[in-house]
Amino acid sequence: MVLAVTDNSAPAVEAPPATRIVLVVEYEGTRYCGYQLQAGQPSVQAELEKALEKLTGMRTRPAAASRTDTGVHARGQVISFKTTSALPLAAFIHGMNYHLPKDIAVRAAYKVREGFDVRRRAISREYRYYMLNRPSRSPLLRNQAYLVKETLDVEAMNRACQVLIGEHDFASFGSSLEAGRQTVRSVYKAEVRREDEMVVFTIIASSFLPHQVRNTVGALIEVGAGRMSLDEFCSIMDAKKPGLVGPAAPACGLFLVKVNYPRPLEEELL
Amino acid sequence: MVLAVTDNSAPAVEAPPATRIVLVVEYEGTRYCGYQLQAGQPSVQAELEKALEKLTGMRTRPAAASRTDTGVHARGQVISFKTTSALPLAAFIHGMNYHLPKDIAVRAAYKVREGFDVRRRAISREYRYYMLNRPSRSPLLRNQAYLVKETLDVEAMNRACQVLIGEHDFASFGSSLEAGRQTVRSVYKAEVRREDEMVVFTIIASSFLPHQVRNTVGALIEVGAGRMSLDEFCSIMDAKKPGLVGPAAPACGLFLVKVNYPRPLEEELL
Repeated sequence: MVLAVTDNSAPAVEAPPATRIVLVVEYEGTRYCGYQLQAGQPSVQAELEKALEKLTGMRTRPAAASRTDTGVHARGQVISFKTTSALPLAAFIHGMNYHLPKDIAVRAAYKVREGFDVRRRAISREYRYYMLNRPSRSPLLRNQAYLVKETLDVEAMNRACQVLIGEHDFASFGSSLEAGRQTVRSVYKAEVRREDEMVVFTIIASSFLPHQVRNTVGALIEVGAGRMSLDEFCSIMDAKKPGLVGPAAPACGLFLVKVNYPRPLEEELL
Repeated sequence: MVLAVTDNSAPAVEAPPATRIVLVVEYEGTRYCGYQLQAGQPSVQAELEKALEKLTGMRTRPAAASRTDTGVHARGQVISFKTTSALPLAAFIHGMNYHLPKDIAVRAAYKVREGFDVRRRAISREYRYYMLNRPSRSPLLRNQAYLVKETLDVEAMNRACQVLIGEHDFASFGSSLEAGRQTVRSVYKAEVRREDEMVVFTIIASSFLPHQVRNTVGALIEVGAGRMSLDEFCSIMDAKKPGLVGPAAPACGLFLVKVNYPRPLEEELL
């Protein structure tokens, strides 16, 4: 009575469809060698991969919109990965936050279309640098601002900021490793504001050279403290070569605030 | 030829004049059992005494304007002590900050008249409580704000604040240890403001019962989340007995912001 055709191949288990997820991530970078994986060092990426594996049971390698350096913080880093996990989006917030250490958390989760490239699709990145401008150190802000004891002239700093706005060669504010690489970037906003004891530098650009923001802040502090004139700042910029600015401002004051996309992430669906 | 009268007693070394110093102190309370000395526990006072001894070579016991609990922070705690040290005032800022751990620092130093009592002379204390009002936890604010996930109705909370203003018996917001003690206090300001994701409660009063601010915030959160009506809040206040409000809000959100004196501290000289 063997009428049916026997199929000896493995049962046709349908592979679950892979979806692309985007997460907005906040972290205090103090404990980490930076966003990116580095052998033998604690990184934000390693913690995210560990938590993703605990949550989904699968190894996943996320891509990030902006690589932050050692000790740099983020309020809105954006990462993306493909997963066959059927978990609802809310689980990628609350489940991840259960598994992640206290200094890293997911703020939002989106499903996006398969081809979405979290780095290339970004049209700009916003960074902020916090200078605590008072005579004595602050225990409450010790990991999230850089103490500058000399009174900063915010007007002078803003005049220097004007020089940064637009499409320019920022080689002078890059690191020496950049030799031979493209060093033209577009800066859409560069501004310094005082909020009581805090002086906040905001910069929005297409993208940044390595160490560009911290090198820029280092020079702006020289201007604000009266040790560098606007002309000197312009000459450094015009020289288009690294090594002319003083020390970069330390990482503790720097925050990746936001990554901007042409459309809101909730509209980047398949 | 022994004509002069011999004085066999010790040579008359003039004792250096003792001066009274006031310091304004900032700290992150996370690591401490509170301001006050407690055997076998790390306290802010113990760290201040250690640093004072290193700086002046003398053991000194400071008095504080407001005793903060375990985990509570301060932007403007005020302490005072007598010293025969001849160090200039600036050394009591920068020298202390050299010896103090990273989570404690001196912001300002004043010489005041001998009789100045840092606690009794204070006319009011200002505390702030920070509620981070968003769905997910914040790595950057984890030690300095309390996460409240339900959207808080700031208008409703402000209506409850109105009930607190004036001279009232605050027994309902004190701890049960207060039985039999004076529980009338004068509240000069009580107000809730929203700043984006942060809801900030400010209260200024003559002085506070132990745990009064955190018990008050616990009740205000119930009101803001819609679980307690204004009438219920008023009934609790009118009952004048502890134990009716829910759990106190956790210490991590609470800051001693300022201690007010009838005159600026720089005018409190001999």
